[in-house]
Parts: sequence; C-alpha cells; structure tokens
Amino acid sequence: SRELFVLTYGALVAQLCKDYEKDEDVNICLDRMGYGIGIRLIDDFLARSAVKKCRSYSETADMIAQVAFKMYLGITASVSCTSAAGNEFSLILDKNPLVDFVEELPAERASLCYCNLLCGVIRGALEMVHLAAEVTFLQDRLKGDAVTEIGITFLRKAEDRKHKRN
Amino acid sequence: SRELFVLTYGALVAQLCKDYEKDEDVNICLDRMGYGIGIRLIDDFLARSAVKKCRSYSETADMIAQVAFKMYLGITASVSCTSAAGNEFSLILDKNPLVDFVEELPAERASLCYCNLLCGVIRGALEMVHLAAEVTFLQDRLKGDAVTEIGITFLRKAEDRKHKRN
Repeated sequence: SRELFVLTYGALVAQLCKDYEKDEDVNICLDRMGYGIGIRLIDDFLARSAVKKCRSYSETADMIAQVAFKMYLGITASVSCTSAAGNEFSLILDKNPLVDFVEELPAERASLCYCNLLCGVIRGALEMVHLAAEVTFLQDRLKGDAVTEIGITFLRKAEDRKHKRN
Repeated sequence: SRELFVLTYGALVAQLCKDYEKDEDVNICLDRMGYGIGIRLIDDFLARSAVKKCRSYSETADMIAQVAFKMYLGITASVSCTSAAGNEFSLILDKNPLVDFVEELPAERASLCYCNLLCGVIRGALEMVHLAAEVTFLQDRLKGDAVTEIGITFLRKAEDRKHKRN
C-alpha cells in the first residue's frame, strides 16, 4: 500500500523544511537523497523488471515512465521527446500519488519542489547504467500547473565526446 | 513496490540522525512523526479493510498484526497476550521489511530505535478509534535480538475509570 509511503515522504519533506529555511536548500537535499536511493534502487529494478538493455534514450525514457513508475509509484507517465537532438524528454504525470495528502504548498514555500526526491532517484538510477542525465521538474500541479512534468536531459557520454575529438 | 518506501524511510532516519545528536531525540521524533501519520492513515485503513468494530483488545491487536501490517508492510506479525489483565500484547515480526537495506546500526547509534515510526503510527491510529495505548519496541533484530517485538499496552479508558469511581 502506497499511503504509508506517501505520508512518510511528507514527514521527510516537512522535516527538511524545518531544517532548511530556503526552498532551494530543501530541493537540493531531496535531490541528493533521491540520488542515494536511485543508485541502490536500480538493482532491485533490473532484477524485478527483467528488462534488457535499452538501445536508445527514447527506449530508456519509456522504460522509466511505463515500467519503473508503475513499479514504484503505481502510475505511468506519458513521454514525449522535446529536442531535435533526441536527448531531451518530457514525462507527463496526470496523477502524482506522492502529493495525495498535500492540499497546496504553504505561501512561504512557493519554490519548493515537493517531489524533488524523484528527480534524484531517476538521476542516480540512470548513472548506475552509465547514463548521465539532468532531471528536473518542469511543471508541477502543486504550483498551479495543469500537469506535473519531469524533464530528463541525457548528457552526451564522455566517451562519445572523446570519439568525436579523435 | 516496497523498496522505494524502505529506502525513503532510511533517508528520513539518516536525516534525523544528522539533526539530533542523541538517539533518544531521534526516537522521540520518529514516534511523533509516526503519530501524525497514524492519525491520517486510520481513515485509509478503515475504508480499505472494511473492518467492523473490534470487540476486545485482543481482536484489535490481531487486526493490527494480521490486516494492517499486511496492508502497509506486506508482512504479518504473530500476537500474544502478555498480561493477566489482558491489555498488554506482544507483536512478533519474523521479518521486518523496513530494515531490508540496513546491515547494522553504527556503534555510535546503539540506542536508536530505527523503526520507531511504526510505534507512533500504531499509537496515532489507535487514538483515532478512541483507544489510548503505549507502543514501544521490546526487541529489535537490529540490536542483536532474535526477533523484532513491538509491545502494545492498552491504557484504561477515562470512561472506564469514571464508571468505576461512580
């Protein structure tokens, strides 16, 4: 059941809000915690999903949105590629169970990325399969946006750059 | 999936260990957070379990160990009554998924009740159905005990005492 998780996550965010005055510091902390979780969670994901190697960034983004989100949050997200270069993706969540018990952000916490842990989790997990990525919230229903949108930008691998230079 | 929850819980405990030097303060904080979660979680539990009113402390303890633990942690606990008065119960957990990723407590955190959130959750949830209780860890595998044991002591209701006095 997700409810205990969702409420525990809320307690974590509340604690960080006590600890750090600036929203930005809470966001960084959540992202860092998520990263630490992602690098451990990936083993569980690979074992249980029995997924084979993804052959493209697009396939990887779909895997996160369809399989990983389903497995850990009980929802799926829709994916669209947002760059001609094919390395930027947008994951749209119609529903976000993590905010089930959150009515709205308090006025003094307007810059809080409440679910920022998720970005860190994705970033950490991707790094463990040798994919460097930037992961951020682009839209957030908690901030009045129509949907919740997570942006993933795959960064060129160091090796790719090296090959190019040679 | 439980893994994301379990790792997120670990991040919460780690944060509190950063915040508070004394184990006792971390334990109190976890219990208090759990209490806040329990008083919200009870509605979800009652709705989804469709449980009827428990008629005895014993039935209530079984409900927690068999139904609630299964619903939120994916395990069940065995229950035994530990007082002649019939108001003290012991919940024995052979497996505790919350510690799946914890190898052992660091030496300087020997008094930490890592899972103390659970005690608070139970206490908070019981209070919402008008049952006052003390809930504490009596044994903990993380501390080298053979099992994990949660003790629940139901406190006499104020009304009971009033009736007696009259």
